Amino acid sequence: MAHTIHSRHVHYGWDNGLEPVLEVEPGEAVEFEVVDASGGQLNPGSTAADVARLDFERVNPVTGPVFIKGAKPGDVLEVEILEFGPARWGWTAIIPGFGLLAGEFPEPYLKIWDLSGTGDRAWFNERIAVPLAPFPGTIGVALPEPGRHSIVPPRKNGGNMDIRHLTAGTRLLLPVWVEGALFSIGDTHAAQGDGEVCGTAIETAMQVACRFRIRRDLRLDEPAFIVPGPLASGQDPRGYFVTTGISDDLMEASRKAVRAMIRYLGETYHLEPAEAYALASVAVDLKISEVVDAPNWLVSAFLPQSLFVR
Amino acid sequence: MAHTIHSRHVHYGWDNGLEPVLEVEPGEAVEFEVVDASGGQLNPGSTAADVARLDFERVNPVTGPVFIKGAKPGDVLEVEILEFGPARWGWTAIIPGFGLLAGEFPEPYLKIWDLSGTGDRAWFNERIAVPLAPFPGTIGVALPEPGRHSIVPPRKNGGNMDIRHLTAGTRLLLPVWVEGALFSIGDTHAAQGDGEVCGTAIETAMQVACRFRIRRDLRLDEPAFIVPGPLASGQDPRGYFVTTGISDDLMEASRKAVRAMIRYLGETYHLEPAEAYALASVAVDLKISEVVDAPNWLVSAFLPQSLFVR
Repeated sequence: MAHTIHSRHVHYGWDNGLEPVLEVEPGEAVEFEVVDASGGQLNPGSTAADVARLDFERVNPVTGPVFIKGAKPGDVLEVEILEFGPARWGWTAIIPGFGLLAGEFPEPYLKIWDLSGTGDRAWFNERIAVPLAPFPGTIGVALPEPGRHSIVPPRKNGGNMDIRHLTAGTRLLLPVWVEGALFSIGDTHAAQGDGEVCGTAIETAMQVACRFRIRRDLRLDEPAFIVPGPLASGQDPRGYFVTTGISDDLMEASRKAVRAMIRYLGETYHLEPAEAYALASVAVDLKISEVVDAPNWLVSAFLPQSLFVR
Repeated sequence: MAHTIHSRHVHYGWDNGLEPVLEVEPGEAVEFEVVDASGGQLNPGSTAADVARLDFERVNPVTGPVFIKGAKPGDVLEVEILEFGPARWGWTAIIPGFGLLAGEFPEPYLKIWDLSGTGDRAWFNERIAVPLAPFPGTIGVALPEPGRHSIVPPRKNGGNMDIRHLTAGTRLLLPVWVEGALFSIGDTHAAQGDGEVCGTAIETAMQVACRFRIRRDLRLDEPAFIVPGPLASGQDPRGYFVTTGISDDLMEASRKAVRAMIRYLGETYHLEPAEAYALASVAVDLKISEVVDAPNWLVSAFLPQSLFVR
């Protein structure tokens, strides 16, 4: 790897006034040391009480920014996601006030995952294992608007998109808004379901390598990406148990599908509601089945059966 | 097959006062002749002008109802979807006033698909072919509330759910609301993407066989289903081009992702906007990437690359 950006070069928010920590030519690969989404506030000995004490000024640091030579507003920055380093441990939390069912889960919850030597999956308990499929939760470029913008919401610059399909081999296409693009990356996840319903994934520090190219053959207002082959989701040879949520509001349809999944996981696998909600966040995929049969829309939540090992 | 219900036994709407056309024991299989969603108003010679003249009192007929002996309110009816007969032709329409982007597509559009002898895919044009994966768009039981209820919106009884994953081998779980459940099925689709964004799929008449069982080992407020293996979506060996939509409203995020896909299909494959919208409806899958990074949610639209054959 030609370049490595160490984890001391983090920033908290998108700001096009930040000094780049590195300038690279298109075609060059860069390795980033990514800090976990708590910014080091949680460790393998942490408890739910530590979740309640998180300082939100220090969450979701991103490593960068990198100035890509020649990138100009109106271009598209292609970010090829090359590979991820190993992770030793991870965490999944229910943070009061956050998540799809925030009103129903007011108490903090924390699951610490041992990722050392677990190979291609992480054990949730002695029966349930989640397949690992690492990706960066936050990946983006600077916004054109001056000043510091919160890292939490994704925007036209990408950012905290939490797209589980941005795994190794994927090429992310980001519209460029400022000279040099000013690329940063963070919030690496060892696994997550489509939706990230409880608000966190298997959060972990990780190294990630990317290669940059500038494309002028397409226009983009918002990010797009190219997946090179079959999706990590959808491959389960043992199939899926699927709940549905039906409502005249897509968000409420999502909530209903997740509530039904939490109940199913409780009745069938004896998980506590908070455990089921966290497991759904890291392993259940939300699909929009229909948005056209007025006035009711339908969201489906897909639970892979291979999670249940014993 | 022990029983066949012919296509003259259709009804238009859910009504628990309808006389069953058949009574079956749990474990019995039934074959249904399903009429296309236009109720025979469209034929292989139809044009967009015929779409504008559709009589909505006659759309989406369902075949049935079937009384399943022993099924009682509070039970779950398991409907195993056994197999589909061949289809000769199908249609996909943009119907003024319907669809995710109804405001942007005020004109009717109609695509007639030749499904005779096309094997496992249907040709959209000389370069683009859509893999077939038949399922019933509408499948459900009677509602507890008396009177006739429109067939269009899905509800706690299932109905017009348009879940593309209800392919052969799937077991649909429907809460039972009245004695005998009163099961009906219709609106067979030869292919559809998650979302059915333009409002129609590859609509076609088809025979479909189902087997019924009564389950009392789980409680359901809304439908659920069991997929026996890998999903038909997500398997493309050539991968996916994916657009995103970011908004503080999930429906608007869906619209943005689909608009970006329509633009991409136009710029890259020279499709007219209506063609691209229709192709997205039958072959592009909407996933909810995140619903937790307040205040912005993200929907992704997945275009399989194997559609593009030449």
